[in-house]
Amino acid sequence: MKIRFEPSGIATEAQAGETLLQVAMRAGVEIESVCGGRGTCGKCRVIATRGLGPVTDLERRALSAAERAKGYRLACQALVEGDVEVVVPEESRRSRVSILAEGLAEGIALDPWVRRHRLDVPPTTLEEQLCDWEALRRAWGREGAAYRPTLQALRQLPYALRQGEGKVALITADDFLVHIAPGPGPERLVGIAFDIGTTTVVGYLMDLESGQPLAVSSQLNPQTRYGDDVVSRIAFSSQPGGLEALRGAIVQCLNALIAEATARVGLAPRDVLAATVVGNTTMQHLFLGISPAALAQAPYVPVVEDALSLAAEELGLDMAPGARVWALPNIAGWVGADTVGVLLATRLYAQEEIGLAIDIGTNGEMALGSRERLVTCSTAAGPAFEGAHLSCGMRAADGAIDRVHIEQDVSWHAIGEAPPRGICGSGLVDLVAEMLRAGILAPSGLLQNGEALGDGSQALRRRIVQNGRQREFIVAFPSEGANGRAIHVTQRDVRELQLAKGAIRAGVEILLKELGVGYGDVKKVFLAGAFGNYIRPESALAIGLIPHFPQAEILPVGNAAGEGAKMALLSRRERERASEIARRTEYLELSGRPDFQEVFAEALLFHS
Amino acid sequence: MKIRFEPSGIATEAQAGETLLQVAMRAGVEIESVCGGRGTCGKCRVIATRGLGPVTDLERRALSAAERAKGYRLACQALVEGDVEVVVPEESRRSRVSILAEGLAEGIALDPWVRRHRLDVPPTTLEEQLCDWEALRRAWGREGAAYRPTLQALRQLPYALRQGEGKVALITADDFLVHIAPGPGPERLVGIAFDIGTTTVVGYLMDLESGQPLAVSSQLNPQTRYGDDVVSRIAFSSQPGGLEALRGAIVQCLNALIAEATARVGLAPRDVLAATVVGNTTMQHLFLGISPAALAQAPYVPVVEDALSLAAEELGLDMAPGARVWALPNIAGWVGADTVGVLLATRLYAQEEIGLAIDIGTNGEMALGSRERLVTCSTAAGPAFEGAHLSCGMRAADGAIDRVHIEQDVSWHAIGEAPPRGICGSGLVDLVAEMLRAGILAPSGLLQNGEALGDGSQALRRRIVQNGRQREFIVAFPSEGANGRAIHVTQRDVRELQLAKGAIRAGVEILLKELGVGYGDVKKVFLAGAFGNYIRPESALAIGLIPHFPQAEILPVGNAAGEGAKMALLSRRERERASEIARRTEYLELSGRPDFQEVFAEALLFHS
Repeated sequence: MKIRFEPSGIATEAQAGETLLQVAMRAGVEIESVCGGRGTCGKCRVIATRGLGPVTDLERRALSAAERAKGYRLACQALVEGDVEVVVPEESRRSRVSILAEGLAEGIALDPWVRRHRLDVPPTTLEEQLCDWEALRRAWGREGAAYRPTLQALRQLPYALRQGEGKVALITADDFLVHIAPGPGPERLVGIAFDIGTTTVVGYLMDLESGQPLAVSSQLNPQTRYGDDVVSRIAFSSQPGGLEALRGAIVQCLNALIAEATARVGLAPRDVLAATVVGNTTMQHLFLGISPAALAQAPYVPVVEDALSLAAEELGLDMAPGARVWALPNIAGWVGADTVGVLLATRLYAQEEIGLAIDIGTNGEMALGSRERLVTCSTAAGPAFEGAHLSCGMRAADGAIDRVHIEQDVSWHAIGEAPPRGICGSGLVDLVAEMLRAGILAPSGLLQNGEALGDGSQALRRRIVQNGRQREFIVAFPSEGANGRAIHVTQRDVRELQLAKGAIRAGVEILLKELGVGYGDVKKVFLAGAFGNYIRPESALAIGLIPHFPQAEILPVGNAAGEGAKMALLSRRERERASEIARRTEYLELSGRPDFQEVFAEALLFHS
Repeated sequence: MKIRFEPSGIATEAQAGETLLQVAMRAGVEIESVCGGRGTCGKCRVIATRGLGPVTDLERRALSAAERAKGYRLACQALVEGDVEVVVPEESRRSRVSILAEGLAEGIALDPWVRRHRLDVPPTTLEEQLCDWEALRRAWGREGAAYRPTLQALRQLPYALRQGEGKVALITADDFLVHIAPGPGPERLVGIAFDIGTTTVVGYLMDLESGQPLAVSSQLNPQTRYGDDVVSRIAFSSQPGGLEALRGAIVQCLNALIAEATARVGLAPRDVLAATVVGNTTMQHLFLGISPAALAQAPYVPVVEDALSLAAEELGLDMAPGARVWALPNIAGWVGADTVGVLLATRLYAQEEIGLAIDIGTNGEMALGSRERLVTCSTAAGPAFEGAHLSCGMRAADGAIDRVHIEQDVSWHAIGEAPPRGICGSGLVDLVAEMLRAGILAPSGLLQNGEALGDGSQALRRRIVQNGRQREFIVAFPSEGANGRAIHVTQRDVRELQLAKGAIRAGVEILLKELGVGYGDVKKVFLAGAFGNYIRPESALAIGLIPHFPQAEILPVGNAAGEGAKMALLSRRERERASEIARRTEYLELSGRPDFQEVFAEALLFHS
């Protein structure tokens, strides 16, 4: 049967017996629905006169006779019987907000799981003697039956009821009644979306009713004091007291971010009603206080992959009494909730054409596919992309060379326009790309000696020096560098980068093999994360970090994981999608692939 | 349709379409059922060959073909179609335990809401890579789908699974999976039932699997430092910080009782998995940290009457991580969960004949009725029955005169066989009863002068003295009393007792009026609470505290409220009954009765 929605003009097919709401959701037509399709909220009213089953009792209750005469129906109750033309009136359309960085999804429908309900509770009498909760329950009616009061809300109830003289604002989060305030309630309902990175932790404070961002705060992950990378933190967590120390550190950090972000807009931590959390599987486990030890040894399994809905209180977060926290689900031991966030924000799971998303850090997580099938894997890239473990490597901070250009000689740019102190990951990729182009590096990764460059390159030849058994290439001379030290890249540094890029590239190749698609089939490449944002796509191609996809648009999308956390904070539907993504997405364990070593050896070479 | 259960021989009527389990529950035939009638646990197997609807899919899954051939059915699935003869085999009968004090219910069916499930979780492989929770969920199958893991249980999961090499014990409380332990799990599953009295707090530590009591601990309610009685504590709770101080005091007390009771049997607080709590409405509110302020002024309503299921953690109780607490429901502002406990333990709500239960303290709560209708009320008796606010009153402790006999002269008994220091409540009732019998007191409550006693009573006459404007009766002379002080009762003391007994008696009379029954209709009188337990029934009758019920058995039942808390701890069904009692029982607000003053004035007189 054909269903056509106006005024959007979206047309789709439906089965007899489906509700109009089901059809609309599938077709991407956004219709308001508060009660989840139970027929109690009356928000999903649409106009349609033909092709539907009889008007139900619930519709008779929600719609006046005059409305029914005009063809009004509840989309959640009306069953398809034939072709239908549906008009979705203005008031039933969901508002859409655009919260995402450029290159990401076009906006999401605001469908908050934290909601405000305003109520007027009549006073009880000596004859009736209703307890406060019963009086409120009666005033709330059938809609309220879906919510379970938290202890915190019950504690607020008597004050709110008397202070508001019966007028109260009820704030619900999912099935919980979490907060009761007198009168209209707080000016804003706010929540915070957390992205717990191994290195950096970010909190995005959002207005839950308007979808507007309010403030952002970020900090270095204080767990770094127990280990720079995921593997060393897993090891530390297995020592006595280690897990609790790591959990305590991240909880303290999140509390600091809440305090900072709320202070910036004149609010307090106790105004924050909800939070979402993304992070890699280890970060999620450590935040929850669940041991990640099993992730470090075969078969590399997490304790839990499901999304978890928890009380802020049991996690130790300083938020509103009764506040709820939703931790996004993980896909596997080494593909975590951060990747779910990336997939949510990039809409990779919904696209008709094949796309690739890569989040590059110490571990590279990548996903390839479309709405048909999505496959992910993770490879241990090592620290080279983060500028660590290199002779002159450093983080992308002031004084880090982040851009290099080679013509007759080397020119570079350092962050903060400061004297250079080292090279960061994106600078190294740029440098190696340029060295390859200039013939200073062979595709095998061998640093050439000066003679190989020919005559016209005097300036470059003096930068190639032999230091003991190793050859080096000088990027900045001592006179240029901070503290009078030269910035150079060694043959060993190049090999480190080769291992890192080889791991990422091999992952991509295996995903392509698994999906049985070629380079030409990939239409979009999302580069997520700080590194993906700063790297020059042409340099990434030049060193062969990613293959040359002739049909693909390459999109640096910034902190897509964090964007996913925001979407889950603002929308029940996006949250459900996150769980669906985690369930649906396949995970390839590369250590179990017999072809991995071969693909990896090939991927080490510098060619695109 | 006629349904007959064997081997018990219980026969009952049923409607077509009812399940055998529903019929059995109504008839009091105890059939095992773990899944709550969902057809998944397969525990409710019975044998019946005629009069039932067709075998369902769920039954085919739970019963082998051989069993079905023998007539085995699941009681929760088999629908009545005609007369049925049902055999309940041994393995499907619930075990019964007797935990109650004499005079109370005959025993309850063990039906714990905290249960142990043993599971063998196969190890996962590199190919399969199931996360721990998913592996456990698959091994648990359909039964496990009913349970939601707590964060605490997820934290225990990786350790338990690896330490037990896949063999784990899962402990569930209601719908929550609260604890996971390696191997067979803890030796005992223990819980604690609390009775929070205004004056005394008691904890009963129980084995949840056998129903056996393990230890009892008790303490003075430390809230007494903020006020002796309920009204003064409500007032204190309204001061800044007052509610939190009262909550903190009782939580600390309960934690001390847990520590004491567990230590006695070689356990620790973290072994305690569940708790139930009874107390009057104010005590329940203070324990939950909910303001009871509205109880002190018209219309005298609580914030919440419902039973509440909460995490021990959010209440601040030191118990097992993930442990659950169930607070029994309240009936009204001045008839609380303690009365629900009394009704549960006395089975008043289930009896065919009319019974009366009275719990006497500073407030007297009483309930009258049968399974047809049950009405309660509360009267402010004042502190006389607790020995307070009397010239020589004291608590029932060493040195308190608790029994008095008057013949030619006065003889008395003091607790602990110690020199008397005062009179406790039951001693005062005894004393006044004897003084009435001896003619020292007139039925109006007037203390007679010596002349009225006549000649044969020299010994008694010298005990009646005039002290200023007031007459006194000396019970023990200075030579007998501790510290050389006389123990006496004054005219004012007698008036205090009159007010107290008048309040109780008036409540009873109003309940009788409300129910439209006479003294002769009442078949059982339960005297609950410490005072009810120590008082001599004949003295209570002599002073007219309770009317003379010619047909009634008078049963002192001790701490029936605490017995109710134990029952709710051991049985889901008793817990459901508690909620049903709270819902069903009517509450009479005496301040709203125009006839109260008249009845009260009559009730002040000393005649039975």
